[in-house]
Amino acid sequence: MSSVAMIEYADASPEVRAVYDDIMATRKVDWINNFWKVLAHHPATLRRTWESIKQVMAPGALDALTKEMIYLAISASNQCGYCTASHTAGARKAGMTDAMLGELMAVVGMANETNGLASGYQVEIDDAFKPKR
Amino acid sequence: MSSVAMIEYADASPEVRAVYDDIMATRKVDWINNFWKVLAHHPATLRRTWESIKQVMAPGALDALTKEMIYLAISASNQCGYCTASHTAGARKAGMTDAMLGELMAVVGMANETNGLASGYQVEIDDAFKPKR
Amino acid sequence: MSSVAMIEYADASPEVRAVYDDIMATRKVDWINNFWKVLAHHPATLRRTWESIKQVMAPGALDALTKEMIYLAISASNQCGYCTASHTAGARKAGMTDAMLGELMAVVGMANETNGLASGYQVEIDDAFKPKR
Amino acid sequence: MSSVAMIEYADASPEVRAVYDDIMATRKVDWINNFWKVLAHHPATLRRTWESIKQVMAPGALDALTKEMIYLAISASNQCGYCTASHTAGARKAGMTDAMLGELMAVVGMANETNGLASGYQVEIDDAFKPKR
Amino acid sequence: MSSVAMIEYADASPEVRAVYDDIMATRKVDWINNFWKVLAHHPATLRRTWESIKQVMAPGALDALTKEMIYLAISASNQCGYCTASHTAGARKAGMTDAMLGELMAVVGMANETNGLASGYQVEIDDAFKPKR
Amino acid sequence: MSSVAMIEYADASPEVRAVYDDIMATRKVDWINNFWKVLAHHPATLRRTWESIKQVMAPGALDALTKEMIYLAISASNQCGYCTASHTAGARKAGMTDAMLGELMAVVGMANETNGLASGYQVEIDDAFKPKR
Repeated sequence: MSSVAMIEYADASPEVRAVYDDIMATRKVDWINNFWKVLAHHPATLRRTWESIKQVMAPGALDALTKEMIYLAISASNQCGYCTASHTAGARKAGMTDAMLGELMAVVGMANETNGLASGYQVEIDDAFKPKR
Repeated sequence: MSSVAMIEYADASPEVRAVYDDIMATRKVDWINNFWKVLAHHPATLRRTWESIKQVMAPGALDALTKEMIYLAISASNQCGYCTASHTAGARKAGMTDAMLGELMAVVGMANETNGLASGYQVEIDDAFKPKR
Repeated sequence: MSSVAMIEYADASPEVRAVYDDIMATRKVDWINNFWKVLAHHPATLRRTWESIKQVMAPGALDALTKEMIYLAISASNQCGYCTASHTAGARKAGMTDAMLGELMAVVGMANETNGLASGYQVEIDDAFKPKR
Repeated sequence: MSSVAMIEYADASPEVRAVYDDIMATRKVDWINNFWKVLAHHPATLRRTWESIKQVMAPGALDALTKEMIYLAISASNQCGYCTASHTAGARKAGMTDAMLGELMAVVGMANETNGLASGYQVEIDDAFKPKR
Repeated sequence: MSSVAMIEYADASPEVRAVYDDIMATRKVDWINNFWKVLAHHPATLRRTWESIKQVMAPGALDALTKEMIYLAISASNQCGYCTASHTAGARKAGMTDAMLGELMAVVGMANETNGLASGYQVEIDDAFKPKR
Repeated sequence: MSSVAMIEYADASPEVRAVYDDIMATRKVDWINNFWKVLAHHPATLRRTWESIKQVMAPGALDALTKEMIYLAISASNQCGYCTASHTAGARKAGMTDAMLGELMAVVGMANETNGLASGYQVEIDDAFKPKR
């Protein structure tokens, strides 16, 4: 159970409702997930986090699916259960197939494996991998 | 400096040279980066890790650029300096532009931020995010 | 369920009871939480860990509330569910309000975000941030 | 060396200069540290990250020193070298003494130790640590 | 509940069954644990991961118990609940006693503590700890 | 460079010298590594950390080499450069061969890989892996 009570739409202040409305409109959904209902106890964090997510996850040089998959990859690697569950759902909604999920997780696994090997052996960075200016 | 001496091509056993040759042929490069030269001290790990990377990073349901960017995202999030440097180079070679790098890092940052918030508030997983079977 | 059986006060050896008694006296509580009941299977770890916690968490240059909030921040960032729950309770007991929790978690989130950005871009340490001796 | 070129004030666009000016005015310094010069390659991330940091780190229910120490604690625990160096400097500027640093690091160490113990033994959360509603 | 449906032996393709059969034969058990049933949705990952685990965990310069304990130590430190549970079981099957578990977890705790201290204080590596070549 | 000045033996207080003397006597060395010289700025942390390390790393149900290898495994996985360097040296001194290091790192890599896979797929713990009481 979350550390602070979740704030439902019916009980929310106008300030919180405005964020909830924008979340639902932007995502084309008719409900608010627990993460936001918990953040709502601190309205400044709710608004700032939502505005940031909305900006960062909008399609740009990378499309929405790629961004959702990267989000999921970090969440899995960081062992965040809530984030993994919510961004698996988000990535599927954005078009991730089972085959894509399988390849995504294979990359997550390999990256974590070789991160451990590179640091465990204290491998030095090759000159060729250093930016040239 | 790495924990074990790096093995140069000229000093490598036939078993190690075979892996080095396959790395260079697959990646269309004419040199071996330090990571592999260090793993070569334990040939079974060298071969297994390379065979795994080759399989996992081959284009499939996800293209090579997407895979390299996910690899880079995990490496950055895990604070692995060598891996971040080498996979930044890898992703650029696969076509990552500065604009893509900027959006990729923005997602990495946000994912780490909300991972901390979700666990810090002990947010419970919404039923809607649980798989239906 | 924990890896080893929890040892209740009634079943504890005199050595374990002495630690339990000190925990309850120091914290002014009349019960022992699961963490200590699990550590009790290895009395040397129980005693050492408790003596360390008691020393480290005693008010000094930093007050007890600040120390509890730092402990909670690390636990949230590390994705440790038990630790987050127990140190949220501990920080509240030491005086943390909902407003403080809101600001604490905002800092935890931002720190994790910028940690990812700094490592992802391989930012070099400014000379001004290096200690002068 | 950072993945992207750092943008100096003299070479910055008006948009980037506006953020640089606000950083220097807010922090009462006359220089920009590398973190921001790197983020400047992606102006949207520069502005968003700075606006967030400015909001989150402003004194409120927690004072500026406490916030800087929490930031430092997370950075140390996450093994982020740049962040540890810059926030050690930031916390010292905000008033952190050597004695405070000593106690802060002692808490960081203990929190990481008991996080490992709690997860290693799979300790279950006590009912008393669950929020009551 | 896992992100993808688990594949039971009765429903598995010949390719997946071949891996399941080898897991059961190698480990001398008559059931398949959830990890493999989930990986089975992506047969290439199932086979590659199993072949790697089989090779890596086979007794060699290190015996099977030592390897299982190292696996458990990493899993505990990484806060991976599934991995901690499964490798606690695996280590016990390989001969880990309660006394060994107690000492193992004490090392895990201390390593995490001093990792935090070393990075928090930005300790420089002693020349004596650098490999001589 | 470390956040606080290192305290050399010649400049140390009697309290710090007593710990330094015990470190050198216990480890049969005639010098003090940087980690302890940094901790010495906060004598309570110096003494407590050393006493804990001495107790935890003493041979018991696990021998000294196994303990050093577990310490190294955690340090590599946590991306702690100083700790990886110092415990690689420590493990070699305790008898770790290149072959053992190779197998140790292979386990570290695999554990990190499967930790990522288990959390990424949100695998549920098998009943068989839950302790029976």
